[in-house]
Amino acid sequence: MDVEEFTPSAEQYAYTFGGVAPVRRVRPGATLRLWSDDAFGGALRSVSDLSTEKVDLSAVNPQTGPFYVEGAEPGDTLVLHLVALEPARDWGASAHIPFFGGMTSTDRTVTLQDPLPDATYIYELDRARGTVTFAAQQSDFSVDLPINPMLGTVGVAPAGGEVRSSLVPERFGGNMDTPEMAAGTTCYLGVNVEGALFSLGDGHYRQGEGEACGTAVEGAMTTTVIVDLIKGGAPLWPRLETDTHWMTVGSSRPLEDAWRIGQAELIGWFGDLYGLHPQDGYQLLSQISEAPLANVVDANFSSVVKAAKALLPAASAFGGIHDELRNRAASIL
Amino acid sequence: MDVEEFTPSAEQYAYTFGGVAPVRRVRPGATLRLWSDDAFGGALRSVSDLSTEKVDLSAVNPQTGPFYVEGAEPGDTLVLHLVALEPARDWGASAHIPFFGGMTSTDRTVTLQDPLPDATYIYELDRARGTVTFAAQQSDFSVDLPINPMLGTVGVAPAGGEVRSSLVPERFGGNMDTPEMAAGTTCYLGVNVEGALFSLGDGHYRQGEGEACGTAVEGAMTTTVIVDLIKGGAPLWPRLETDTHWMTVGSSRPLEDAWRIGQAELIGWFGDLYGLHPQDGYQLLSQISEAPLANVVDANFSSVVKAAKALLPAASAFGGIHDELRNRAASIL
Amino acid sequence: MDVEEFTPSAEQYAYTFGGVAPVRRVRPGATLRLWSDDAFGGALRSVSDLSTEKVDLSAVNPQTGPFYVEGAEPGDTLVLHLVALEPARDWGASAHIPFFGGMTSTDRTVTLQDPLPDATYIYELDRARGTVTFAAQQSDFSVDLPINPMLGTVGVAPAGGEVRSSLVPERFGGNMDTPEMAAGTTCYLGVNVEGALFSLGDGHYRQGEGEACGTAVEGAMTTTVIVDLIKGGAPLWPRLETDTHWMTVGSSRPLEDAWRIGQAELIGWFGDLYGLHPQDGYQLLSQISEAPLANVVDANFSSVVKAAKALLPAASAFGGIHDELRNRAASIL
Amino acid sequence: MDVEEFTPSAEQYAYTFGGVAPVRRVRPGATLRLWSDDAFGGALRSVSDLSTEKVDLSAVNPQTGPFYVEGAEPGDTLVLHLVALEPARDWGASAHIPFFGGMTSTDRTVTLQDPLPDATYIYELDRARGTVTFAAQQSDFSVDLPINPMLGTVGVAPAGGEVRSSLVPERFGGNMDTPEMAAGTTCYLGVNVEGALFSLGDGHYRQGEGEACGTAVEGAMTTTVIVDLIKGGAPLWPRLETDTHWMTVGSSRPLEDAWRIGQAELIGWFGDLYGLHPQDGYQLLSQISEAPLANVVDANFSSVVKAAKALLPAASAFGGIHDELRNRAASIL
Repeated sequence: MDVEEFTPSAEQYAYTFGGVAPVRRVRPGATLRLWSDDAFGGALRSVSDLSTEKVDLSAVNPQTGPFYVEGAEPGDTLVLHLVALEPARDWGASAHIPFFGGMTSTDRTVTLQDPLPDATYIYELDRARGTVTFAAQQSDFSVDLPINPMLGTVGVAPAGGEVRSSLVPERFGGNMDTPEMAAGTTCYLGVNVEGALFSLGDGHYRQGEGEACGTAVEGAMTTTVIVDLIKGGAPLWPRLETDTHWMTVGSSRPLEDAWRIGQAELIGWFGDLYGLHPQDGYQLLSQISEAPLANVVDANFSSVVKAAKALLPAASAFGGIHDELRNRAASIL
Repeated sequence: MDVEEFTPSAEQYAYTFGGVAPVRRVRPGATLRLWSDDAFGGALRSVSDLSTEKVDLSAVNPQTGPFYVEGAEPGDTLVLHLVALEPARDWGASAHIPFFGGMTSTDRTVTLQDPLPDATYIYELDRARGTVTFAAQQSDFSVDLPINPMLGTVGVAPAGGEVRSSLVPERFGGNMDTPEMAAGTTCYLGVNVEGALFSLGDGHYRQGEGEACGTAVEGAMTTTVIVDLIKGGAPLWPRLETDTHWMTVGSSRPLEDAWRIGQAELIGWFGDLYGLHPQDGYQLLSQISEAPLANVVDANFSSVVKAAKALLPAASAFGGIHDELRNRAASIL
Repeated sequence: MDVEEFTPSAEQYAYTFGGVAPVRRVRPGATLRLWSDDAFGGALRSVSDLSTEKVDLSAVNPQTGPFYVEGAEPGDTLVLHLVALEPARDWGASAHIPFFGGMTSTDRTVTLQDPLPDATYIYELDRARGTVTFAAQQSDFSVDLPINPMLGTVGVAPAGGEVRSSLVPERFGGNMDTPEMAAGTTCYLGVNVEGALFSLGDGHYRQGEGEACGTAVEGAMTTTVIVDLIKGGAPLWPRLETDTHWMTVGSSRPLEDAWRIGQAELIGWFGDLYGLHPQDGYQLLSQISEAPLANVVDANFSSVVKAAKALLPAASAFGGIHDELRNRAASIL
Repeated sequence: MDVEEFTPSAEQYAYTFGGVAPVRRVRPGATLRLWSDDAFGGALRSVSDLSTEKVDLSAVNPQTGPFYVEGAEPGDTLVLHLVALEPARDWGASAHIPFFGGMTSTDRTVTLQDPLPDATYIYELDRARGTVTFAAQQSDFSVDLPINPMLGTVGVAPAGGEVRSSLVPERFGGNMDTPEMAAGTTCYLGVNVEGALFSLGDGHYRQGEGEACGTAVEGAMTTTVIVDLIKGGAPLWPRLETDTHWMTVGSSRPLEDAWRIGQAELIGWFGDLYGLHPQDGYQLLSQISEAPLANVVDANFSSVVKAAKALLPAASAFGGIHDELRNRAASIL
């Protein structure tokens, strides 16, 4: 199978969803191998590189794309199957950016307090062992952590002519920052504009649920993704499918609204999958939902709601495309 | 080992944390086998038993207790190790109570809309297979779900002379409604009053994270619990320990504050466990936290923050009491 | 008209709503003249008295009361008409209490930041001019501000056997911290327990809407109040009436829920007053509501929703008791 | 003084802030007389015109503009002084749009409940008396209300290349929906792009604080506005000045964050105006702030924080431009 490679030049990065001309046109069914820089554009390379000095918060999460998907029209469903995510550098970086993150006041939750100390952590990658190393800065504690590569940011152009920063998670996907966006996941996004104009980036070598400090182990990533298109059927909010789970991602503030959105979207999906009336779906999901937080730090907070396929009768979504893409992916790897 | 049994009479149930005289005194080290009624006091026994007719919301979550723990003083740490949770009836009940739950307006998030239809679901228990059965009401869908017994409510008397409804999760524990409160879990609660005055109840045969509709598969439960006491060391908020995880539970509104509380408590605990400075703990937990929601439906919302022991160096909390209690538990079962 | 005077001894103060025996019994129609200490119990008397050293946050807002109102039963409406509020000391105090207030992280909105500096401001009262003086601490700015005496805290015992700290505003009133609670205001509270058990305190010589730093110009107060009782008719949430406005006070978190509660209560009241269907009341109030914040700092936030009588046809609430009490008040002053 | 008139053609309306080419260039100091259509584009003209049938929510709040202000550069302060707001039709319209508004579930606060009934209210304008008439639909209640013309929407192009719907209030102004945006008000907005690209619209003949149902008495408006420019000095968030008050407008979710933003901005402004240290400004504003809600219904909620000039020493902002513009306005009227 043909794999189209794309590595953006410095000027080719996008910092918004919408508002940017496509870097390429792709056909449904295409497999892309995409290089994406880390959230900081590679600016933090040692613990002495502080975000206040090296990072411009209006230009983070550089996006690889957008890609124009041929035939995609508003109301269609863009299908992105993540085949493989490979760390593209030998280190990742995380930072405590002043007034950014979940355990500090921010430009929204404004207080009069001083910021937390600016700090940068560098995580060395051991490819053989598949680990990154956390090293404390105030004591000699260190620990190797298994890598779990994921993408913080996968999205399409918004509806209504809006253009949003690549820091924003929303209905169009975007900076959802969930560890569920990993190899083996199929992501369904509603198409808002001709060509869908999807992009991705913000690779994480690993991230905790909630992304407490606002930054994961941020790393350049090589992503292999199969692009496909379902005519019509656009979900209201991003849906994810893996071999084991049905998932939705809601993004809003306060956090309970993000959760409500995800819950409603999954109840709606259960109507499609199992013919369940919303009241019955509500009841069933009340007993089986998993609800891991994605992030409590971005412009909107994101909450994942998921249901294990193993608990449920067999069903297939969007014509069973996930299984088909898993098979195609197996032939690539 | 002696096991003290207690089954409350109808008049002995408590509906608050605090404000109630103890039903018994127990010594640290005691093992109790406690019967608790379901959240509805057993009032919902068929799908035609509607909550609007049968349930008084000012008297739900009947508590078994409170128990006066000898020697417990404010500032101490009450240790409750859940040895076993056994369904005490052959069915559980769940209800869509009007204006109660996560996907409806409530007495807090007030709207002018009509309530959702009142509905009761009965889940038959198959003890041999260890399942409860969900049966849809608007179609013929049904599915057997593995039981996963847990307690919605475990708490002590509040500080400051407050008395709180057993619907409330707070600093003192209470109606946290997390599936993590299961057999094998040790729960640490700060003691606020002499004797601690803990109680438990609100058994769930299974519950999804978030407890979307506001009620789990509610069922009477027989709980075997070892009670112990650490002098001093009271955590600010509930901490849980299992063989695999360190956990904290924050409860507040909006939901992000519940998460913030849990995150801060776990950062504090990592200071105790690993000598980590809060900034280092913040960074490390940002990369390894799991953050499953507990409930988005109670008087306060509850969020669990957890860290896998397998990712971390060996450490022991509260003098290693969890392992010791696991051993004691093994000798009981 | 007889005026019953009451000045609590140090041991007689209450620090909770509910859970305390009444200090006196009063008959409906009684006029009381009550002395209440300031929120800090008089502990802050100079700028060098810091809250961290002198104030125990578990014993603030000392309440004068509770009073047992003869004949009051659950479901009745307690009527408290504020006749006069007179500063009882020649100075008031305000404090920036660490981790308390609207522009700092708190024990709910937890962050890892350091607290703001602890600071105490003393406001000298000029009785002749009716002013208190603000003096900056970091520059030589000072300004005299007109006094506007009000009570932060007016409430009854909660429902359901709960006992709540006098820091809490809720359905039962409590620490609503609104400048609307001033002389000339009639406050309607639903009775939850026999005797209603109301108390008041937390006098403010003046307060901004929102009470940003968490403390007003806190001062001991002499309050003249007429107590009355309407059998039945209990409002769900506190209602206030002045010569010029209909008002309701909602208290919850997040702040929008406090506002929603107040809005719904006023829509309900407009049904009583004008026979308006809720949809029509919703529309009308959308065009005429005033919505001044009360506080964004307490255990719950409080939001006032009000409508000017001048915009509306004549109507009377609770049998026109406000006008009657105004007349009675005029005969006292 | 020259007044430049502009009435957009149907195709000239903008539905976003940013992303649209300017309709005109204007010089600082120019006076404009602008016609703006109502929020519904004039689609609701009788009570039988329902929003579900006649209104496309992706094209509401048609903006008159954007205008390119010569010399305006990022970091500058755009000054818009509202000289006069005149109703441009003889009726206004308000609607209960399904799943839109403060007392209903929405696309953010999602529930499974049915929407409120779609309803349209028409308010006839009596120019002589200066009133609009509310007529109930479920009873024969009606009342004449004084008009209080204001603009829901005044904003500039956002920073960072974003483009936002004209339903959104944010840092760039936008759909703040506050009754304070009336004749006599000077609005200061930070410039984000060359030319500032400001637009305005969404006239309201009157609106309650909070804009509970999501729509005011929406009406076409003729707005006379003087445009000016201060080089540099861009405020972080919108600031308003009248003859009587200093004001700021914060917009975010949850509502407390909107209030926090406004409070911080006013504390910052008090530093400029009075040389007050933030801690002193915090204290002073805690005692004098007024905090009327703007809206609790838009994509972000908006909260106004204001301080009465009468309570404070004389001071002037931005070189005293408000007084100067008031004088210029007087010469126009």
